[in-house]
Amino acid sequence: MYKTRSRRLLLISLMLCIYSFGISQPPRGPFIISPQIHTDKKVTFRYLAPSAKQVLLGGSQFGAAQLPMMKDSVGIWSVTVGPVKADIYPYSFTVDGVTVMDPANVDYFPNERFKASLVDVPGDTVLIHSMRDVPHGTVTYEYYPSVEGSTGSLFVYTPPGYDKATTKKYPVFYLISGTTDTEETFFKVGHANLILDNLIAEGKAIPMIVVMPYGNPMARIAEQTGRAKPSDVVSRDGEDAIKRAKLFETDLITKVIPYVEMNYRAIKNRESRAIGGFSRGGGQTLRTSFGNMDKFAWICCYSSYLSTPEMESSFKNVYENSERTNKELKLLWVSVGTEDFLYKPTLEFIDFLKSKNVNHKTLISSGGHTWMNVKNYVTQTVQLLFQ
Amino acid sequence: MYKTRSRRLLLISLMLCIYSFGISQPPRGPFIISPQIHTDKKVTFRYLAPSAKQVLLGGSQFGAAQLPMMKDSVGIWSVTVGPVKADIYPYSFTVDGVTVMDPANVDYFPNERFKASLVDVPGDTVLIHSMRDVPHGTVTYEYYPSVEGSTGSLFVYTPPGYDKATTKKYPVFYLISGTTDTEETFFKVGHANLILDNLIAEGKAIPMIVVMPYGNPMARIAEQTGRAKPSDVVSRDGEDAIKRAKLFETDLITKVIPYVEMNYRAIKNRESRAIGGFSRGGGQTLRTSFGNMDKFAWICCYSSYLSTPEMESSFKNVYENSERTNKELKLLWVSVGTEDFLYKPTLEFIDFLKSKNVNHKTLISSGGHTWMNVKNYVTQTVQLLFQ
Repeated sequence: MYKTRSRRLLLISLMLCIYSFGISQPPRGPFIISPQIHTDKKVTFRYLAPSAKQVLLGGSQFGAAQLPMMKDSVGIWSVTVGPVKADIYPYSFTVDGVTVMDPANVDYFPNERFKASLVDVPGDTVLIHSMRDVPHGTVTYEYYPSVEGSTGSLFVYTPPGYDKATTKKYPVFYLISGTTDTEETFFKVGHANLILDNLIAEGKAIPMIVVMPYGNPMARIAEQTGRAKPSDVVSRDGEDAIKRAKLFETDLITKVIPYVEMNYRAIKNRESRAIGGFSRGGGQTLRTSFGNMDKFAWICCYSSYLSTPEMESSFKNVYENSERTNKELKLLWVSVGTEDFLYKPTLEFIDFLKSKNVNHKTLISSGGHTWMNVKNYVTQTVQLLFQ
Repeated sequence: MYKTRSRRLLLISLMLCIYSFGISQPPRGPFIISPQIHTDKKVTFRYLAPSAKQVLLGGSQFGAAQLPMMKDSVGIWSVTVGPVKADIYPYSFTVDGVTVMDPANVDYFPNERFKASLVDVPGDTVLIHSMRDVPHGTVTYEYYPSVEGSTGSLFVYTPPGYDKATTKKYPVFYLISGTTDTEETFFKVGHANLILDNLIAEGKAIPMIVVMPYGNPMARIAEQTGRAKPSDVVSRDGEDAIKRAKLFETDLITKVIPYVEMNYRAIKNRESRAIGGFSRGGGQTLRTSFGNMDKFAWICCYSSYLSTPEMESSFKNVYENSERTNKELKLLWVSVGTEDFLYKPTLEFIDFLKSKNVNHKTLISSGGHTWMNVKNYVTQTVQLLFQ
């Protein structure tokens, strides 16, 4: 009897994999563990593709931009890299020229254009962006009424104890991700929630609400109205980029902030509002805050800049009376990596601020335009906010 | 000047896509819209692969299990299907034998083994699982202390008005997804939150909290302790499946429910607790509720069953005194599709309940072991719960 049930359950467990989402899937074959992180911090990546001619590991942190993988007798391709510096790295496989996520890995990189998986290489001590045995805040997925009648979505981090402290009010950090990222990216790739949990537990950051919006309302409107044309969805020139930034600004100032301040226990003054962002989100951060100096006293620009022409044409208010600006702004932070393709224009932006005597803090780090750097910049800046 | 800035921004916007997650990506080339839903409910899928020899659309709802796609002069493969019945369908592309998500589509199917995208074909009127202009609840991602010292994660839906109604308490529906699904699947594929928003707005469901746990704590423990072996992670025989179900039951009863009832305004009695699940989650639902009749008065089994031998060996308590069971249970629901590979054993389970005079409600629908059916079953059952 047991044998029969055993066989039936085996059959079912296989069929579940084949049928469980109602589309035909290839049988799973041998079970794959990928990525496998070894105690010496080497990492083995595996991909099952018996009939593939070439499988490459993509992930610039692992040596070359693409590393060849070797196939074993059952058709499992694998490569072992490292020892790898403890961090969270995106990677993908290129199988006969097709770039794919790791099907064996549930941790993915939320993005509108590319598909990648994430490998989290732990440190010898638990890193600041990793899960520690400390009180955890929660991350809430919210719908809100957005611009042009669209419905927007936000991730909102509330710190540990928020629900218990039924009257306490908190400052708010608006945190914006980059081009083609989604509102999930700062949560799933940036671990903003775990970084805050850990820094709050250490007493290094004060409890705050973190609001993670979607950076491209124009694309969302196009999607919801069925007007999806390339020109609606991607930015391909400067004018358009600025138009998009303006729509984002309108959404944040007139929709997101009022929604958050109505639905969360937020302190409603500029000294208790911070804004930060990475890449496109960094440009949106600068435009939105410089354009609304009455709304934000804390500004964090990660791996981005505004050009001198744009500063001169749009944001004289920031530097013409730098004394007033220096009084008003509690923090103007700009950070970039020396290998970032935006390194040079970001340095030019920093020089511009210097030349105009606008107070600012900078962090020039190693590395490039990566989320490994972003996590570090967030870790540094949230320790400065609201104190 | 504008031209220069324009060119630089164009360059940057392209490079952002290439570099924005720190691994080398192929340039985006022509912009792809996929899927594109036409007004006549036909759907066009597109995939850019100039050098591919064959690209197939996978998605059994679109005719064959796999449909050939045709390549145009710039290397964009496409196929148009339908008109398609309004619903949410998983699909994927098979590119020279490699199954991939749609890189142009941000809507994905959270799963541990396969990678698929989702296409949401709207109805002529807005469907019950789609976004309507009604008050929205929120979905919160929670960490909780789980079994064997592991940290578990939950999605928790709170109904519209939960935050405002600072003292009102709510009944709780524990909703468990299937094999290789994650705690996100009932949210992102099942749209449990939107179904509740819409039914609550119509007065057809009473406001409730919905808790969506992860169904495989053994895998999570293996992952967090680094003990990841195939035998830790996938179920390949009956004994193991039951052992896993037992660990899930322990986690739900001793960890999840206490956590939820401490952190949410939950009514703490069996008449205010419901449990339901799909596929493996349906089996876990039956085992957990039959094994803890003092905890749940509402049971919803979607596309699953328990075998007669298991009922006889483990759950005599349910049928030996069916009068008492019929008094205690407000609902025992079993539903399955006629094309479901579990159709026959599920009918046997229903017959077993009949033969033992255990009251139950059934829905035998068309279709198979799919999330299209699950959304319908959830829609039907949440209108019965707690009333």
